[in-house]
Amino acid sequence: MKRATTRVATRRLPDRHIGWIGVGKMGARMCRRALAAGYRLTVLEPVVENRAIVVARGAGFVSTAAELCDRARVIVLTIPDDSVLREVVLGPDGLCAHVAPGDIVVDMSTVSPHLSAEAADVLARTGAAFVRAPVSGSTQLASDGQLTILLSGPPEAVRAVEPLLATLSTRRLYLGAGEEARYMKFVLNILAGSTAAVLSEALMFGRKGGLSTRAMLDVIADSIVASPLIEGKRDMLLARDFDPAFSIQQMITDFDLVADTARAIRAPMMIAGLIRQQFELARAAGDGERDYFALLEQFERMAGLAPEAPDEADDTLPETG
Amino acid sequence: MKRATTRVATRRLPDRHIGWIGVGKMGARMCRRALAAGYRLTVLEPVVENRAIVVARGAGFVSTAAELCDRARVIVLTIPDDSVLREVVLGPDGLCAHVAPGDIVVDMSTVSPHLSAEAADVLARTGAAFVRAPVSGSTQLASDGQLTILLSGPPEAVRAVEPLLATLSTRRLYLGAGEEARYMKFVLNILAGSTAAVLSEALMFGRKGGLSTRAMLDVIADSIVASPLIEGKRDMLLARDFDPAFSIQQMITDFDLVADTARAIRAPMMIAGLIRQQFELARAAGDGERDYFALLEQFERMAGLAPEAPDEADDTLPETG
Repeated sequence: MKRATTRVATRRLPDRHIGWIGVGKMGARMCRRALAAGYRLTVLEPVVENRAIVVARGAGFVSTAAELCDRARVIVLTIPDDSVLREVVLGPDGLCAHVAPGDIVVDMSTVSPHLSAEAADVLARTGAAFVRAPVSGSTQLASDGQLTILLSGPPEAVRAVEPLLATLSTRRLYLGAGEEARYMKFVLNILAGSTAAVLSEALMFGRKGGLSTRAMLDVIADSIVASPLIEGKRDMLLARDFDPAFSIQQMITDFDLVADTARAIRAPMMIAGLIRQQFELARAAGDGERDYFALLEQFERMAGLAPEAPDEADDTLPETG
Repeated sequence: MKRATTRVATRRLPDRHIGWIGVGKMGARMCRRALAAGYRLTVLEPVVENRAIVVARGAGFVSTAAELCDRARVIVLTIPDDSVLREVVLGPDGLCAHVAPGDIVVDMSTVSPHLSAEAADVLARTGAAFVRAPVSGSTQLASDGQLTILLSGPPEAVRAVEPLLATLSTRRLYLGAGEEARYMKFVLNILAGSTAAVLSEALMFGRKGGLSTRAMLDVIADSIVASPLIEGKRDMLLARDFDPAFSIQQMITDFDLVADTARAIRAPMMIAGLIRQQFELARAAGDGERDYFALLEQFERMAGLAPEAPDEADDTLPETG
């Protein structure tokens, strides 16, 4: 079957010197991939400890966007949120004051489409292109260069940075010339957060009916509603070990970005709105820093169920006769 | 990894003469599988046209539960709902008045755990066993003998009917001695109905942001939130052809069964409650007999979006230079 999205073909990047702003958990892993692939990197990262990891592997560093723009014609952003994007691109000493015509800014963060469009407009005034490239995947997938990158923006700029992005990812999906990648990232986040909530409600219901979480997850894994996400969270749900791959706090931030965007585009989000509040209940109960699938225990508390003991005994068919 | 559920091992059924009550869409297909496997069948089905299909293939028929119980020691039910189960098992001329000690009644319908427990209790008074065996799967899977059967009830009775059930299914999952299979079926239904609703909300949001349904389904299919259910509904969602595999009307019936049960076991079902009402909006708009994934168009109407044209053009990366 023909698929609508396009896996972008690899071409040569004209300049193998990359500027990189924001070297946090994800960014550091991605920088290491780019360095290992032979790119020269100069980073702008205020936290010395974060910066040191990539400097030890051969990256240079600078303290201002002006210096970064002196050295690199392609600048990658892996930053936490809208407020940092606003400062880094639109601030008085931000990229918009220093980029040159033909420069490419590649933002791989999860930020709002409206701020993203504003950044693109301002950069375009000096002839710089803005590539939207939010990523989907864990820190482990980042280390392994197996992220999925959602792409939108000017097609020539997207093609130009394709070889760099290929060092970070196994899938690159081009979705359009504007903010399409931002919306697509939100669609995936809505589905991931909603999966946690809907699964939690169903598992709570089943436990009230006498089923074990283990038995239910077994049947679900064999059913049409199975997903890599649910399968990937199986051990966490059984061991009740909610060491975060992505925290409730982070999911709330993402749902709030979705809500702000939905307000702007007038999309009625009744289910996402309810689920946002359920994550809030979990945060209020002290679970903000646990994985977002710890929402299960919030549903259990709401139903008056004690948390299930980890590693519960199997349900097996008794031997007869 | 060790799984909690047990795939029941096949043994010989002592009596290859089966009574069968209810020969509708699913039941007729299952009867044909059993006949083809060499079972003798006697059916009790008031609708002559339905009955004729299996009688033409060699089944006998009777008009009362009394006659059925004269002939068969194992009786299978594939009936539409609680009210029919009540009449067929507990009614004045129902099975409870005619079964003999050692008889096995196998109910493969989706009914409430509370009525199921009542039926089991009443049958047990005359020494008959009640096997709960709700099925998961489409009419096509029923024709192909590839259903999944969720099983609970007395283990010896479950073992005794295992060879018969093996002619209908590829997976049989034993969950416990009581109503566990009923609850598990509801857990799967909640997840299926919720998937339709959550996906519809996310796709509506994405379309408001300029994405095509096709592009979103492509990315979702490649993501951690992919599921066989979403993949199976892909063509339906793109062609906007909601010929029902399972209708909105049927999903509402199932969600109401869940709600009645949740009330009895005191399970707070906020998300399922909201989604139930969204299916009601779709039914009110005239979509009751369409597939439950037609809920997408309800979300689009709520957002002021026109339905997307079927088979929309691809989003492809424009050629440059």
